[in-house]
Amino acid sequence: MEKMNGFESSKKSDSDSNKDKCLSDDVIINLDQGDPTAFQEYWMKMTDRFTVVIPGWDLMSYFSDTKNVCWFLEPELEKAIKALHGTIGNAATEERYIVVGTGSSQLCQAALFALSSLSEVTPVSIVAAVPYYSTYVEEASYLDSKLYKWEGDARTFDKKGPYIEMVTSPNNPDGTMREPVVNRREGGKVIHDFAYYWPHYTPITRRQDHDLMLFTFSKITGHAGSRIGWALVKDIEVAKKMVQYLTVNSIGVSKESQTRATTILNELTKTCQPQSESFFEYGYEKMKSRWERLREVVESSDVFTLPNYPQAFCNFFGKTISTSPAFAWLGLKEERDLGSLLKEKKVLARGGDRCGCDKKYVRVNMLSRDDDYDGFLHRLATIKDLKCIVP
Amino acid sequence: MEKMNGFESSKKSDSDSNKDKCLSDDVIINLDQGDPTAFQEYWMKMTDRFTVVIPGWDLMSYFSDTKNVCWFLEPELEKAIKALHGTIGNAATEERYIVVGTGSSQLCQAALFALSSLSEVTPVSIVAAVPYYSTYVEEASYLDSKLYKWEGDARTFDKKGPYIEMVTSPNNPDGTMREPVVNRREGGKVIHDFAYYWPHYTPITRRQDHDLMLFTFSKITGHAGSRIGWALVKDIEVAKKMVQYLTVNSIGVSKESQTRATTILNELTKTCQPQSESFFEYGYEKMKSRWERLREVVESSDVFTLPNYPQAFCNFFGKTISTSPAFAWLGLKEERDLGSLLKEKKVLARGGDRCGCDKKYVRVNMLSRDDDYDGFLHRLATIKDLKCIVP
Repeated sequence: MEKMNGFESSKKSDSDSNKDKCLSDDVIINLDQGDPTAFQEYWMKMTDRFTVVIPGWDLMSYFSDTKNVCWFLEPELEKAIKALHGTIGNAATEERYIVVGTGSSQLCQAALFALSSLSEVTPVSIVAAVPYYSTYVEEASYLDSKLYKWEGDARTFDKKGPYIEMVTSPNNPDGTMREPVVNRREGGKVIHDFAYYWPHYTPITRRQDHDLMLFTFSKITGHAGSRIGWALVKDIEVAKKMVQYLTVNSIGVSKESQTRATTILNELTKTCQPQSESFFEYGYEKMKSRWERLREVVESSDVFTLPNYPQAFCNFFGKTISTSPAFAWLGLKEERDLGSLLKEKKVLARGGDRCGCDKKYVRVNMLSRDDDYDGFLHRLATIKDLKCIVP
Repeated sequence: MEKMNGFESSKKSDSDSNKDKCLSDDVIINLDQGDPTAFQEYWMKMTDRFTVVIPGWDLMSYFSDTKNVCWFLEPELEKAIKALHGTIGNAATEERYIVVGTGSSQLCQAALFALSSLSEVTPVSIVAAVPYYSTYVEEASYLDSKLYKWEGDARTFDKKGPYIEMVTSPNNPDGTMREPVVNRREGGKVIHDFAYYWPHYTPITRRQDHDLMLFTFSKITGHAGSRIGWALVKDIEVAKKMVQYLTVNSIGVSKESQTRATTILNELTKTCQPQSESFFEYGYEKMKSRWERLREVVESSDVFTLPNYPQAFCNFFGKTISTSPAFAWLGLKEERDLGSLLKEKKVLARGGDRCGCDKKYVRVNMLSRDDDYDGFLHRLATIKDLKCIVP
């Protein structure tokens, strides 16, 4: 279970985030969760067009559009989502139902419910190729449902019967581009999680066109606090079942968050036009610089490993670019517990064992605030030789 | 499963809600769901102090207060909730953890998860005395969890082992004040749902002081679209488990909604002061008037039944007042299906069978917009004699 509370962290309120640039060594730097606060500086510079104003009488009803399968989806948000995907070219939105959720976590669970309750045989096996997003394990297990069962690594999965494969691409935690690996002729469904398929993280090489695709506002712009995600769903029966889940689970999704996401996504799309202060250009440069600095530190010792990513032509930027994932999949050259090692340096990262892998790996959030990221690099650079460190 | 989509209804956007006062007879009036739009007129009259303004850079993090058990609860919302309960005198907030949720539906499921996963024996039986809130059945059943199992009416419950009793007071659907009915010495837990324990619906006769109490923003002010609810929880282990549920289920709760609820609840508390345009005074008069008009229609024929409620001294208003529940539990004197009868008049109401009762009863939303409510009374008044109506 994800532990998001109970720690002393370097998390600061929005107002004091830039006050102390230099973190003292006894402050804990939490890079375990993927809190995407790196981009706040961009939004601080932006003008009033990203501000929302909501009068007391507005947004009172449960309903947004009773004629829509997703009756709690604000029509303006639907338009904003379609416009953004159209501009970026990362996903097909035609002939699809859009289902909004309280973040893509809730939507992932809605999809598990939908696909398994439409299955003739239950429990449906849930799998993902290692290393996988650790939260999938929790989402598929915590309620001990008879509808589905977490079965671990997709690569070694050999159980008969229906299954759902989670395919996250670029992958969380290791940033690689992924395809399904089970690929049976029958009984298999795929949930494509495209949370990170945006041009500041990875080249947009094709317009994704799958049956069930998940996206999240959090990892595009950094507005994690809004808890807005959406699914693009081809099959109306699946969409209806997802809406049924969201109806029972929370009677829909915050209208305030939907309204704010609408405003921000619409303006974001506008920043993609020439002569605009493009968010994705800004985000790409920021992520690239962070990765270059991380690689420098890693290469300055003979202790750590990092994945390498191929460059590719990005259809959005119209040029060949590098990949700068939202997480670093940091490894050790020796068989040691990297999470514990970093903990000694008061850096928290998610252990590879939670992602179905070895403890010699950790997942490091690359989207933290500047001072946390700088502090992390500084502490990482002090680890030059594992022999000096008590096992 | 609650069907909130797929119907043609008289639901109008906020801007055109007051345009056509007179509904034509072929318009469907949907009083099945409890959409609480009745109070919008109050908020339309209110000034800017209920307006929220959120700049683009604000509320970006997942985290609100990492030192709080409920790490995603905005500290200002916690204060606003405590201040309101203090002013109304309807619930004790001392020595309790506040857990915020995406409406009280999500919190109810968080509580079921918490109490059952802390139980030594599973599945834990879930019960409620009939007539009960139909959504409890769906919440306890849809995921087919091995942790808990819906067992129906608390009054006839005789299964051994641990159980959780849902006690809704005033009750949804019938408006009566409720106490637990199973009352075994061991193995029993109670979730007190106080969604409607506010002075515009019922006299506040005591300060509730139970282990686990649920409240919802929706039914206080009518802001259902915000999806904000809260639990007051005595036991830290239960609170932690509820937070665990909310972390996996949706990684917390919309910050925009929390911010707006904070503003509105704080100003609401201020309206309770003398010489203010008190929301609860307004709400009480509105509900009382609706109930008086409904009783007039019911008494003008010999067809329908309605519960009677005792008057009581309300500690908040400082006087004896009547009860005006948010739902009317309308019945027939004959054994006929009232839901089908109303459907012929193009009025949708929730059938009593969904609440564990007879079809001769329906639950009617008393919080609809004026034109819908007026239309409902008008059509109800046309039913004078069941003999004229085809069975």
